Amino acid sequence: MEKRVRVLIDCEDAKGLVYKISKVFYDRDLNIENNREYVDKAHGRFFMRTVVTGDFEIKELASALKKVAPDEANLQVVEPKRKKIVILVTKESHALGDILIRHASGELNADIEAVIGNHDTLEELVCRFNIPFFKVSAEGMSREAHEAKMMKVIDEQNFDYIVLAKYMRILTSTFVKAYAKKIINIHHSFLPAFIGANPYKQAYERGVKIIGATAHYVTDDLDEGPIIAQDVIPVNHRLEWKEMQRAGRDVEKIVLSRALNFVLNDRVFVHGNKTIVF
Amino acid sequence: MEKRVRVLIDCEDAKGLVYKISKVFYDRDLNIENNREYVDKAHGRFFMRTVVTGDFEIKELASALKKVAPDEANLQVVEPKRKKIVILVTKESHALGDILIRHASGELNADIEAVIGNHDTLEELVCRFNIPFFKVSAEGMSREAHEAKMMKVIDEQNFDYIVLAKYMRILTSTFVKAYAKKIINIHHSFLPAFIGANPYKQAYERGVKIIGATAHYVTDDLDEGPIIAQDVIPVNHRLEWKEMQRAGRDVEKIVLSRALNFVLNDRVFVHGNKTIVF
Amino acid sequence: MEKRVRVLIDCEDAKGLVYKISKVFYDRDLNIENNREYVDKAHGRFFMRTVVTGDFEIKELASALKKVAPDEANLQVVEPKRKKIVILVTKESHALGDILIRHASGELNADIEAVIGNHDTLEELVCRFNIPFFKVSAEGMSREAHEAKMMKVIDEQNFDYIVLAKYMRILTSTFVKAYAKKIINIHHSFLPAFIGANPYKQAYERGVKIIGATAHYVTDDLDEGPIIAQDVIPVNHRLEWKEMQRAGRDVEKIVLSRALNFVLNDRVFVHGNKTIVF
Amino acid sequence: MEKRVRVLIDCEDAKGLVYKISKVFYDRDLNIENNREYVDKAHGRFFMRTVVTGDFEIKELASALKKVAPDEANLQVVEPKRKKIVILVTKESHALGDILIRHASGELNADIEAVIGNHDTLEELVCRFNIPFFKVSAEGMSREAHEAKMMKVIDEQNFDYIVLAKYMRILTSTFVKAYAKKIINIHHSFLPAFIGANPYKQAYERGVKIIGATAHYVTDDLDEGPIIAQDVIPVNHRLEWKEMQRAGRDVEKIVLSRALNFVLNDRVFVHGNKTIVF
Repeated sequence: MEKRVRVLIDCEDAKGLVYKISKVFYDRDLNIENNREYVDKAHGRFFMRTVVTGDFEIKELASALKKVAPDEANLQVVEPKRKKIVILVTKESHALGDILIRHASGELNADIEAVIGNHDTLEELVCRFNIPFFKVSAEGMSREAHEAKMMKVIDEQNFDYIVLAKYMRILTSTFVKAYAKKIINIHHSFLPAFIGANPYKQAYERGVKIIGATAHYVTDDLDEGPIIAQDVIPVNHRLEWKEMQRAGRDVEKIVLSRALNFVLNDRVFVHGNKTIVF
Repeated sequence: MEKRVRVLIDCEDAKGLVYKISKVFYDRDLNIENNREYVDKAHGRFFMRTVVTGDFEIKELASALKKVAPDEANLQVVEPKRKKIVILVTKESHALGDILIRHASGELNADIEAVIGNHDTLEELVCRFNIPFFKVSAEGMSREAHEAKMMKVIDEQNFDYIVLAKYMRILTSTFVKAYAKKIINIHHSFLPAFIGANPYKQAYERGVKIIGATAHYVTDDLDEGPIIAQDVIPVNHRLEWKEMQRAGRDVEKIVLSRALNFVLNDRVFVHGNKTIVF
Repeated sequence: MEKRVRVLIDCEDAKGLVYKISKVFYDRDLNIENNREYVDKAHGRFFMRTVVTGDFEIKELASALKKVAPDEANLQVVEPKRKKIVILVTKESHALGDILIRHASGELNADIEAVIGNHDTLEELVCRFNIPFFKVSAEGMSREAHEAKMMKVIDEQNFDYIVLAKYMRILTSTFVKAYAKKIINIHHSFLPAFIGANPYKQAYERGVKIIGATAHYVTDDLDEGPIIAQDVIPVNHRLEWKEMQRAGRDVEKIVLSRALNFVLNDRVFVHGNKTIVF
Repeated sequence: MEKRVRVLIDCEDAKGLVYKISKVFYDRDLNIENNREYVDKAHGRFFMRTVVTGDFEIKELASALKKVAPDEANLQVVEPKRKKIVILVTKESHALGDILIRHASGELNADIEAVIGNHDTLEELVCRFNIPFFKVSAEGMSREAHEAKMMKVIDEQNFDYIVLAKYMRILTSTFVKAYAKKIINIHHSFLPAFIGANPYKQAYERGVKIIGATAHYVTDDLDEGPIIAQDVIPVNHRLEWKEMQRAGRDVEKIVLSRALNFVLNDRVFVHGNKTIVF
């Protein structure tokens, strides 16, 4: 039966990889719809994302590819299925709202399983779209206790990724490790400038002429995870920091959606602290 | 003997192309340093640029590739040699000056064989860099007669590309055809907006909020050749058209140099009226 | 009683204007919160937008300013009140959705009185936000007959501006004149490039390396009204025109919202076919 | 006799400033060619740059303005004269070359009095333009001793500004203080990201998707002086850090020239650690 799959490989670079992999496709009479490769020479690592179509068994294809790739290779043969996401929020609506609208129009290639907030500010907005909203208040709780409650709610959902759409709480190492490579955050600055709290105020006080936003995977180091997408806009002395914040919101939501589009379509490889985005 | 070559192929798309081409590399024990492919599905066309190293004969490799590629394929196996260029100018120095400085620093991957101007305004600048300057005045001559004189001077040079660095004369079909796919122009607008004369004045009068520049191959249709690179900058109501022109010059020179960098490193395929830039 | 107003003046330039106007403010002991001026020298025209606070009567201030300004001056003293808008749509949700989310969060400095569509595709989305939606089908009707019906619905609303949020029908001169200087459109290209239908397809076929969007006032000439805001994003050969369209949507909605922000805060002067945006 | 001057004022904000200042102009029958004001509300500071023309005495005008401005006001009435600059370099030619070309074409609104390098790499380039080059080697010298020698050469020149066009040595507090508000540097990163050495390598290792450059006044804190101009370009995983550096050079030179254009035309106010650029 005619199928379309994405083949994702990253492994140590070696002579003949492209030949051996394309031979597997050729021997099965597969059609290459799209193919992108990259070799990180500094680390001697090979990355490949190929979309193939044809009449084949996924398991058999994966097993054939496994034989020609190095043992340590990360190899996936995935059908381009719709992913599921859980969104964490606090009070700001712009990033969440942008995702909701894209979801409603069918543009977002994912189902939103739930939105979880530590405040209920955004409950009304979420409910307008008939999506479950859970409030998990942090009031009077330790960070650990609150996160345990969050994780309980999260774990009841069926999801591929957790999207931090302006979730304004710092995550513990426990939380981050529990969902390694699954958490995507939008940071309201052009990282690594203005790490930490209130970047627009920092930017205003530093007198910068450009501000930006960064979407990244969340790792143990605050604001230090692999960057997926970034963008910027020019500002000038006339903007007070509240206005910078306002202008910055547009960049934030666009950058987050761009990053989600990459991630949800299996276009991002992570290696060390960097991404390869095909 | 260890060699490094660029393999450039464009041909009708067909199943197995990547396999067959990579097999040619594999059989000769070549190392793939860099590989980029693209299939234009609308036109069913395959493009590939691969840098390979190894111990091989260029002729033998080219002939082996010829066998596996379709008959109509454009196939080149080129050593990454330094190209030679001739630059045509009129009176404005910014684009020429930028190329001269890059040339002097060794950044430009080309030799400047000559600069030819229809005025002598830039002679002094060119001579500062010990590069031959030829004045071919158009005064009192028909377009055809002037071009004939230009072509005579051009044809005495040894060159791969002709760079129009703000050469402000319209070229006849005869001239363009004589140097097909070899002429690169910088147009002072974000094409296809403001085709024709004095684009900054047009932009000013239209009240646009962004202006730009376009580097393109020159074809028979004025300002309609395949686009290689474009960039823009924001402007506002405060800028008069002379100031727009001034601001635009920076974009022009950067875009031209970016395009030259692509072309001089064999990174541009032209198909129909479009480019594929790897 | 303490008031804050925006003083908007445009008139023929003349010596002493700033002095005379600021004297009016000074004599009334007003505080200048914000002041921007511009003189268009090519047309000898003076523009000024000043925010003043103090204890004064609006009528008296306006009348005093009238005395010092030339007779033909356009002079407004307006309280920064929330404007009312009507939104016209067809089927695409991104621009509308962006406005709805900004409205819901309180960021949009306007009330949405109604959304009117020639299809009912977006009815569900609009109703989620408890905003009236009117469907005015054009099926089987002449352009004139349909517009007459549209105008009937529009005229029943209380509004300052009509926002065309991807309203995909061409307007007649009758319609445009009925709402002169009140209609704001988002055009899905970097005007004046790709005027007319399907600009993304045009852009794809021309092989451009950058695409954009333009928000402008609607005048009698299709896509020729005064430009309020523009922005662009880079694209490359890999994007098919549907993908360009998708990428372009983000630019469209951001540019439209930026333009709305200017217009709704009385920051835009129109003179001839150009805008001065303070 | 008809004159044109720039009036530059910054002082504590106060009611009536615009009125009083414009009255001074009005009483002398001056024409306002260009006027820009800004009030920094966070610091209660007023900034104004006005270009006036008319028949007047500069001293008398300055003295009249002094009377209406607060005592602590910084007030200048300057004729738009061509400034003089000294350029400091090390080995890289792109920023210097860009300035030389602009100078040669008459675009740079300044005279280059001298270029001083701690290496002689750029001597040949500078001499092509008949501009004095001084080599002040740092070899075998303490930082202090080298700077003393540099200052000796600098002080023999007649200059308004010192431009660090990729001068790769850290300056001591003594040096910076000797030329307070007169040193302009181009930093090869989007500050405050990647402060310090080798920012392109830092950027590469952090995996950023955008790189930039920053032109700023030099103060005692390394890379912390008031920012005059910034710009950025997108990058991706394919660029090694040397390629980032190469791509970054274009941004550096454009940003430096933009900043110089502002400074040389008296368009920059510095207040605290920030600039107001009119």
